[in-house]
Amino acid sequence: MEGVDHLADERNKAQFDVEEMKIVWAGSRHAFEVSDRISRLVASDPAFRKDNRTMLGRKELFKNTLRKAAHAWKRIIELRLSEEEASRLRFYVDEPAFTDLHWGMFVPAIKGQGTEEQQQKWVPLAYKMQIIGCYAQTELGHGSNVQGLETTATFDPQMDEFIIHSPTLTSSKWWPGGLGKVSTHAVVYARLITDGRDHGVHGFIVQLRSLDDHLPLPGITVGDIGMKFGNGAYNTMDNGVLRFDHVRIPRNQMLMRVSQVTREGKYMQSNVPRQLVYGTMVYVRQTIVADASNALSRAVCIATRYSAVRRQFGSQNGIETQVIDYKTQQARLFPLLASAYAFRFVGEWLKWLYMDVTQRLQANDFSTLPEAHACTAGLKSLTTSATADGIEECRKLCGGHGYLCSSGLPELFAVYVPACTYEGDNIVLLLQVARHLMKTLVQYRSNVLKAEDWLKPNVILEAFEARAARMSVACAQSLSKIDNPEEGFQELSADLVEAAAAHCQLIIVSKFIEKLQQDIPGKGVKQQLEILCNVYALFLLHKHLGDFISTGCITPKQASLANDQLRSLYSQVRLNAIALVDAFNYTDHFLGSVLGRYDGNVYPKLYEEAWKDPLNDSVVPDGYHEYVLPMLKQQLRSARL
Amino acid sequence: MEGVDHLADERNKAQFDVEEMKIVWAGSRHAFEVSDRISRLVASDPAFRKDNRTMLGRKELFKNTLRKAAHAWKRIIELRLSEEEASRLRFYVDEPAFTDLHWGMFVPAIKGQGTEEQQQKWVPLAYKMQIIGCYAQTELGHGSNVQGLETTATFDPQMDEFIIHSPTLTSSKWWPGGLGKVSTHAVVYARLITDGRDHGVHGFIVQLRSLDDHLPLPGITVGDIGMKFGNGAYNTMDNGVLRFDHVRIPRNQMLMRVSQVTREGKYMQSNVPRQLVYGTMVYVRQTIVADASNALSRAVCIATRYSAVRRQFGSQNGIETQVIDYKTQQARLFPLLASAYAFRFVGEWLKWLYMDVTQRLQANDFSTLPEAHACTAGLKSLTTSATADGIEECRKLCGGHGYLCSSGLPELFAVYVPACTYEGDNIVLLLQVARHLMKTLVQYRSNVLKAEDWLKPNVILEAFEARAARMSVACAQSLSKIDNPEEGFQELSADLVEAAAAHCQLIIVSKFIEKLQQDIPGKGVKQQLEILCNVYALFLLHKHLGDFISTGCITPKQASLANDQLRSLYSQVRLNAIALVDAFNYTDHFLGSVLGRYDGNVYPKLYEEAWKDPLNDSVVPDGYHEYVLPMLKQQLRSARL
Repeated sequence: MEGVDHLADERNKAQFDVEEMKIVWAGSRHAFEVSDRISRLVASDPAFRKDNRTMLGRKELFKNTLRKAAHAWKRIIELRLSEEEASRLRFYVDEPAFTDLHWGMFVPAIKGQGTEEQQQKWVPLAYKMQIIGCYAQTELGHGSNVQGLETTATFDPQMDEFIIHSPTLTSSKWWPGGLGKVSTHAVVYARLITDGRDHGVHGFIVQLRSLDDHLPLPGITVGDIGMKFGNGAYNTMDNGVLRFDHVRIPRNQMLMRVSQVTREGKYMQSNVPRQLVYGTMVYVRQTIVADASNALSRAVCIATRYSAVRRQFGSQNGIETQVIDYKTQQARLFPLLASAYAFRFVGEWLKWLYMDVTQRLQANDFSTLPEAHACTAGLKSLTTSATADGIEECRKLCGGHGYLCSSGLPELFAVYVPACTYEGDNIVLLLQVARHLMKTLVQYRSNVLKAEDWLKPNVILEAFEARAARMSVACAQSLSKIDNPEEGFQELSADLVEAAAAHCQLIIVSKFIEKLQQDIPGKGVKQQLEILCNVYALFLLHKHLGDFISTGCITPKQASLANDQLRSLYSQVRLNAIALVDAFNYTDHFLGSVLGRYDGNVYPKLYEEAWKDPLNDSVVPDGYHEYVLPMLKQQLRSARL
Repeated sequence: MEGVDHLADERNKAQFDVEEMKIVWAGSRHAFEVSDRISRLVASDPAFRKDNRTMLGRKELFKNTLRKAAHAWKRIIELRLSEEEASRLRFYVDEPAFTDLHWGMFVPAIKGQGTEEQQQKWVPLAYKMQIIGCYAQTELGHGSNVQGLETTATFDPQMDEFIIHSPTLTSSKWWPGGLGKVSTHAVVYARLITDGRDHGVHGFIVQLRSLDDHLPLPGITVGDIGMKFGNGAYNTMDNGVLRFDHVRIPRNQMLMRVSQVTREGKYMQSNVPRQLVYGTMVYVRQTIVADASNALSRAVCIATRYSAVRRQFGSQNGIETQVIDYKTQQARLFPLLASAYAFRFVGEWLKWLYMDVTQRLQANDFSTLPEAHACTAGLKSLTTSATADGIEECRKLCGGHGYLCSSGLPELFAVYVPACTYEGDNIVLLLQVARHLMKTLVQYRSNVLKAEDWLKPNVILEAFEARAARMSVACAQSLSKIDNPEEGFQELSADLVEAAAAHCQLIIVSKFIEKLQQDIPGKGVKQQLEILCNVYALFLLHKHLGDFISTGCITPKQASLANDQLRSLYSQVRLNAIALVDAFNYTDHFLGSVLGRYDGNVYPKLYEEAWKDPLNDSVVPDGYHEYVLPMLKQQLRSARL
């Protein structure tokens, strides 16, 4: 059976040019080419094997990650990879590691918040990995509320040093990735105190471990915070705990681009705009939106392929029906497929928005920052929640076998789900959007008369605009009835969250529609994207029907027409489903799923995989003689257990 | 800090008698007394420790489960526990094990499907655990569709034996718990073939392993199917794979209560009604609904307590706001608290329903069976989906720390979530309900004029009845327009699933309301339950607003009044939240969560827990010298990785 493509019939059904869709998905021909080349490089290197990951104990697992990180770095050097290529390589290695924080948080923090001088000193060391850094912000008692951090950095003018200290248990740094076991340095966030005055939270470069023997420096207590959700998953990362007992660092290790402490201990703001910090936030959150489309598309790819392989019930001519042909399966799976594409395109737009905002900031134009900040906050919230739920739904769509680690889906879920919490809790973020929203208002009523009307982009857009606007208006009206605005905001926060979500969904739908107004080459490619765009919009409309009808944007009859249209769209997606997930261009290595294999040869491989479990090392399990035999032989009374 | 109750203030706020609520939750004073005594027995026995479970490798973990199972059985014998007590003990040990299948599936299968003679032979052996059995039904290629199983049992009249055989790879038995490494016997489901005729799927008792050395008997290939979702979790169970190569068993090991094969090979039906099989299904599914309330209440208990401990933002008087005081937190958490109670009471009712059906079956009255069968199918689907989602929501409500295994929530989720798939996929089950529903129809419109009207049980009930009825009517009307009924059912299945869910939600709401019509003693107990009942109903109404409004059951204005009422109910729940979860009477051992500790002393214990991770055994991690040091010292080129 090896070499046979069990999904060939499915691929032959496709009505569009898959190769062209791959370019659309990747964003550009160049991006496709790099991703394609690097993903094959990783997949073909046995050092990057990951199929045994869920069976390893914590220590073994972690050691294995250290090995892979070193090997990845070695290959990056040997092949003289560009920054873009190196970053794709880490992406396709597909294993959370200390290097994520080193490159993704430590280096950017120094580049963003350090002075020229500080950058010249620290960045080259970090670029060569002569030091390894992490980002120590959150504390045991303080996550979302950064301004509530308790760690202190007290300036000692006599020694020209800061004293970093953890005054309470809850001030212990808690969660930073790469901190527990590997990082030699950290950017530590602490309350700056000079001359008895608290100037709020600032960043400091602190060395944690000796560069000779890796032992923690005096005054530093550091360790791993323990097992996290899932097998393999984020347990490859040494999320850490860190306590300071009056640790001294030179004054010039405070990151001083935005504010400074002088030799005399005077606290001063520089003329660099503080808004730069929000620019970084916009950057981080747009990468999170891009990651959402990566994670959701992987899960959808696995579930779609396996739904075409799996057969159940409905036996006609002796052969059972493919699960993907069931309408209930389509109604759950295809909206997720459409969501993966929708998130891709809104992510592309956010990337553009970030570049635009950055250019404006450099020209001292702060006008678009609040809007961009609210947008990225809301889209981060919406796309990560939908992706976490979507991965789990894909797992359920694979039936019982989705529960096996060899399906790849449990680990994908466990690795992905913290995205809903980190970089801003998703509900807190929507409340930020809501604050921004309580401003502009419109009136509107839909003109849909027949099901086909729901395929018109302007019809869809108008309905989403009206719904978002009216939900905001309703909130604003309710707020106006409560005297204390802040109390009102608290009291109505659940409604405000819903209005914010409606606003963000409008953005995603409108950016998908904008994408379709571009020139998209390739036979049938644009048509497929139009279908997916309609699926995404009408699925949301059905899911949030109460919003649309109760605000009078559409009538129950129009809702029913939308539902009819949705059913017919699903039939169109059905033919192209496999090709649409092939367009993600994922290697079997990256997918890491027996159920999602490109060739669809699922069952023999599942069977093969089972025997690799450590429990199958011996026919009679360890513990049989001590515990099972005495039970069977009624000799438990005398057994020592 | 030891011994201090950090939640004492919260407990003092309660407006009802918690001890009386514990009785209501347990179902009776007797049930409370047994649960309370046995849970303490388990919690105080160090052999049942489980806090290290998520750190163990698969082999160690499994051996540990064998030890606990043996110890549990030893204690059951030593203390001469009743069947009820023994079952509670296994519940509070709280670790999936082969014994679950032995007692929960193997023994009941023989008792339900075996003749008197067969029961006399096999049940005593199983009761003493002289044999250990499992339930081998599902196959690699066949889950939901039992009639599609491929394993064969061919009668050989010459030898008076059945030949059990796995004709294909996809016919391999796959998933049965306890099969992989422990069971000596199994009830195996196979196609019965006599004289070349296929009589469909029947059950057979097959010995798998030698009772002397535990080696698989000739012709039998058996092993574990590998790692499953989560740390610890279901990896304590040896879900197995099993293949037969022409394995012979005596004719009298076919379970012959309902149909038989004679010495001559003649296939015959007995006069025992086949409907008994559905009675068993009703039994199993009602236990699943009860389990849903167990699992959801655990998660809610943890999230509620930690929400009272955790403070974030809103610093007034220097102390931050308790997270439980945020309306967004309440709007997510309290409906789940209400759901836990709602599922409890509908589970109680299902238990009664099962007993009623059983008595009728014994009197040859099959009239209520279809209704009971549809009810349990639908409620199994609805409660397990809501519980799986609810546990994950509780985890998110704990912020980042919920992602740590020491929160107990990742494992609770991973252990619980298969309930959505086993014993009938939740969507397939709702389609069964829908088939049953396509019959009776009503007309109706709501009379709500003010927010308080939504507190009247009959108002709520009528709205839920009307919505369920109208959604069914709408489906029936759409169906009538399609010529081929079966095609129509397929085409409209997504709508039918929604109508079925509406019907099941009506049942849950109505059973909660019925419960409140009983005499419930204890100060304030009934009032609290009334509040929770209203929260549950109005939360569902808000969640499915589109259904209620588009079917004309309520107006947008009435929906808005319901929302106002819901907000005010949340404030009432707030005061009693901690006491309401205390009423579940869970020991800290059973909860297994640092965040959910009874005394609220979370942070010191989280800190303590972290250091137990194997990675913290050494200060410098294993792998540092091979992989990290060469990186830091720029000596990777020459390193062997």
